[in-house]
Amino acid sequence: MTKVFDRPEQFAETALKGFCAANADRVTMVPHGAVRAAPGARGKVALLVGGGSGHYPAFLGYVGTGFADAAVAGDVFASPSTAWIHGVAKAAHRGGGVILGFGNYAGDVLNFGAAAERLRAEGIDARILAVTDDVASAGADERSKRRGVAGDVPVFKIVGAAAEAGLDMDAVMAVAAKVNEATVSFGVAFDGCTLPGQGRPLFTVDTGQVGMGLGIHGEPGISTQAMMPAMDLARTLLEPLLAERPAGHDGRVAVILNGLGRTKYEELFVLWHHLTGMLADAGLTVVEPEVGEFVTSLDMAGCSLTLTWLDDELEGYWRAPADAPAFRKGSVTRPLDTEAVEAGTEALAEIVPGSPASQEAGRRVAALIGHVAAALADAEEELGRIDAQAGDGDHGQGMARGSAAAAVAAEQAVIAGAGAGTILSLAGDAWADRAGGTSGALWGVALRAWGQVLGDAEKPSAQTIAQGAQAAHEAIVRLGGAQVGDKTLVDALVPFVRVLNDQVAAGETLGVAWAAAAARSTEAADATAQLVPRLGRARPLAERSLGHPDAGAVSLALCARVVGANLSE
Amino acid sequence: MTKVFDRPEQFAETALKGFCAANADRVTMVPHGAVRAAPGARGKVALLVGGGSGHYPAFLGYVGTGFADAAVAGDVFASPSTAWIHGVAKAAHRGGGVILGFGNYAGDVLNFGAAAERLRAEGIDARILAVTDDVASAGADERSKRRGVAGDVPVFKIVGAAAEAGLDMDAVMAVAAKVNEATVSFGVAFDGCTLPGQGRPLFTVDTGQVGMGLGIHGEPGISTQAMMPAMDLARTLLEPLLAERPAGHDGRVAVILNGLGRTKYEELFVLWHHLTGMLADAGLTVVEPEVGEFVTSLDMAGCSLTLTWLDDELEGYWRAPADAPAFRKGSVTRPLDTEAVEAGTEALAEIVPGSPASQEAGRRVAALIGHVAAALADAEEELGRIDAQAGDGDHGQGMARGSAAAAVAAEQAVIAGAGAGTILSLAGDAWADRAGGTSGALWGVALRAWGQVLGDAEKPSAQTIAQGAQAAHEAIVRLGGAQVGDKTLVDALVPFVRVLNDQVAAGETLGVAWAAAAARSTEAADATAQLVPRLGRARPLAERSLGHPDAGAVSLALCARVVGANLSE
Repeated sequence: MTKVFDRPEQFAETALKGFCAANADRVTMVPHGAVRAAPGARGKVALLVGGGSGHYPAFLGYVGTGFADAAVAGDVFASPSTAWIHGVAKAAHRGGGVILGFGNYAGDVLNFGAAAERLRAEGIDARILAVTDDVASAGADERSKRRGVAGDVPVFKIVGAAAEAGLDMDAVMAVAAKVNEATVSFGVAFDGCTLPGQGRPLFTVDTGQVGMGLGIHGEPGISTQAMMPAMDLARTLLEPLLAERPAGHDGRVAVILNGLGRTKYEELFVLWHHLTGMLADAGLTVVEPEVGEFVTSLDMAGCSLTLTWLDDELEGYWRAPADAPAFRKGSVTRPLDTEAVEAGTEALAEIVPGSPASQEAGRRVAALIGHVAAALADAEEELGRIDAQAGDGDHGQGMARGSAAAAVAAEQAVIAGAGAGTILSLAGDAWADRAGGTSGALWGVALRAWGQVLGDAEKPSAQTIAQGAQAAHEAIVRLGGAQVGDKTLVDALVPFVRVLNDQVAAGETLGVAWAAAAARSTEAADATAQLVPRLGRARPLAERSLGHPDAGAVSLALCARVVGANLSE
Repeated sequence: MTKVFDRPEQFAETALKGFCAANADRVTMVPHGAVRAAPGARGKVALLVGGGSGHYPAFLGYVGTGFADAAVAGDVFASPSTAWIHGVAKAAHRGGGVILGFGNYAGDVLNFGAAAERLRAEGIDARILAVTDDVASAGADERSKRRGVAGDVPVFKIVGAAAEAGLDMDAVMAVAAKVNEATVSFGVAFDGCTLPGQGRPLFTVDTGQVGMGLGIHGEPGISTQAMMPAMDLARTLLEPLLAERPAGHDGRVAVILNGLGRTKYEELFVLWHHLTGMLADAGLTVVEPEVGEFVTSLDMAGCSLTLTWLDDELEGYWRAPADAPAFRKGSVTRPLDTEAVEAGTEALAEIVPGSPASQEAGRRVAALIGHVAAALADAEEELGRIDAQAGDGDHGQGMARGSAAAAVAAEQAVIAGAGAGTILSLAGDAWADRAGGTSGALWGVALRAWGQVLGDAEKPSAQTIAQGAQAAHEAIVRLGGAQVGDKTLVDALVPFVRVLNDQVAAGETLGVAWAAAAARSTEAADATAQLVPRLGRARPLAERSLGHPDAGAVSLALCARVVGANLSE
């Protein structure tokens, strides 16, 4: 388990500071990430990589010549927020556009996608590169649904080399599409990892068993088998990858044998001894293999094997020199140019005071958000456990952090004289910014949409509040695309919004209507929560990688009840 | 725990093969080790480093330009044998002499020392460098008793750079003495590691506790404290090192923050964040720090901090470029010279046939060794547990492997027509070669000394056999230096030898005399075994690092009983 931390919620940020201090000759810290201390050539395409923390060397360890220009670090196992990604991307941009590279997970897809839109709106050519190498997470015919695991390494390395070579954006993106398509991984888990401050691992593998098709966020595998000797384990890792050898391919492969954290180097070398023979028997020619730790999952025990089917172009970029804190290849000379980097900072929006009636309502809104934050802090571990049954176990953490940040932002907005609408919108922004992950992004757009309906002029009526709930629902569906029955927060949100609007339309007071809506929402969430554990293991992993079933319905219903119980204030 | 292996006894050798295959562009495998694929300049001083396996990147990961010329790998947590070290040193030698570098542990001291003697007898200028950085293992006034832990990294790096720079042997050894004197480490343990194939860890740390002053072989710490926040942990690691700041030193330090295996990168970066501030507050200037995994202990949870007090000379060698599989610094250009290395192989000694009477006695000796090997295989786990209470837990493994190899060598010698003396001597050589560690070296010299007394001409008499036992005892004391009361195998050996000689002198048959001697030996071993657990934690670690109390008395008495029970054959 994770033993070294101060306050768990500071873990990722403190680790980022320590990483930058330890590698001050190579990287420069910017808010929520790092850029090269010696930036690449002006006008080059920049590669920004990132995702949740807890995976080092992914992603900070990849920042350097011939690899990534910058990395953005979310909280542990949680996507960085849109604002964080946007800020680091601006710092990394050298004038030739920026590629945002990440593993294909729901929260990352949302936040990196939103950051790219924001960059494009500012005139920067921003592109998306979602790595999809994990063959256990979806079939070869559903390539775009696959998760990203240690395939991040060859994909980002090769894309970084192409950008370093001076290719323009379209040419680098063509390389990116080719190498992502050519990269496949399969992994196994021997034991789970434990988040900082948590007393229990996200999942466990029974003694003497091995989980097949692991994820890198503590997701359980797709099945278990009895533990086997190293030689058989090597075959188990390799066979699913050989099955995807492209027709007519000449057999040149880049290979990564990756330890997840607790499976140590000598164990990997034992596996590699067997794999060299098996790869040769399969007619493959291994080009500059890497055996070690490249994408970890805290102290998880397990390993994964990655192959990239090379052609002349990809082989050239794979062999090209690189010099990053955790990845060096070939002959490299330290650049003498240490041009200063201007760190991107986000200017705070000016707050326009609301009407006295809206300010008064805003104080109530801020108090309600405080109650929600307190309840979510209490429920953090329980929500994490529910989420871990089918997802990556970060839901409780994200909700607790997001709501705490929202409560602080709401109080600050109250002090600044904001009306109810602005208070709710700024709370939503803070929630998304601090929670990261899928839920953070969804709660952020929901509260902002709700706040825009409330406005800052009038005292919100029951009707306005019910309309705001409807707007929040629409924003979530627009961004997340989930439907009722997908076992997400939408399952609990839809009955809440419908009952609230129906009851208000029938003339009930807000208190009565809200209580009825919260009760219906809770019933729906309970039904979903009972299904999640079974669905977690039964459904294809692909369905979990985008809009995966999580504890979102449970936490939404909890928030609804907490607000209902405190509406009389 | 260690999960990936085939047969546990093959773990280290298979890992070596896999390491060499994964790094074929950088290293060339030789029996039991690796040398640089592109050897250093002819005439340069060669640096050979090594010790037990299970510590990667120590020691194989250090082989490369600007660092080590070669590494020798023993079994897990067990010293490589004298013959292995000698063979790799010969392969590494470039004509300028060879430095044998290792951490200061009893088995390594014996085997590297014996290898150096053998090299010098062959005309090679061989020197010894025992790293003694662990401040928890002995006081500053007993520097030579300290163990070697992650101080291996700066010491070997700086010595390697001095050798690469072309200094002659005396000049490199002067640098070695200075850097070893200037290097201090302190470590903590959160949880123990588990040897391949074992079901239980070598030690455990209670939940919520931290072991202070860990070793890197699963030795428990010198005390435990309640687990603390990262900031306090940083202070705990640093304070014992600051206390040894040399008078008048200007404060330049090389720093290594080392993870033991399960304590992951982000945790180390969190610690480093705090350490940077504390180092600055102490007036120290950190020069090119290293934060990561450099000397591991399988999947042990814990970390250590190492400081090397630099002067201009040491700083220059610390900053010099290096290019090894697990350690790269500065600008490096891959050498194009890939001159082939002639791997050293050991020629087998020719066997001169013994007399028929001695051959007949030799068959009995070989059969007895077979019984001993079977009994030690059965007792392996139990002996490991006893050893782990005060030592490094490798005793059962070493005895099982050594005796099995001895039994095979004895059978081969029987087939080749050897007499009893040669059979026993070759069995001793095989035992030492395969067991590694302290016990292996001691059993090797003991059986060889005993065999020399028996000779190959006469049928051994009870008197000759008793004299042989006396010679074995003298050889052990000469090599190991332990006395009765040190809680080593000498405690059981001395009463055995005395009673055997007394009874034979009094006219008893060999069977009666041996049985009495074995019984007395067992009583002594039992008394020692009861003391070991208490001594393990109570005695200063320094006393355990050389001739540490182990399960050696228990296993010796077991062997004596097994031989006694089968003497009638």
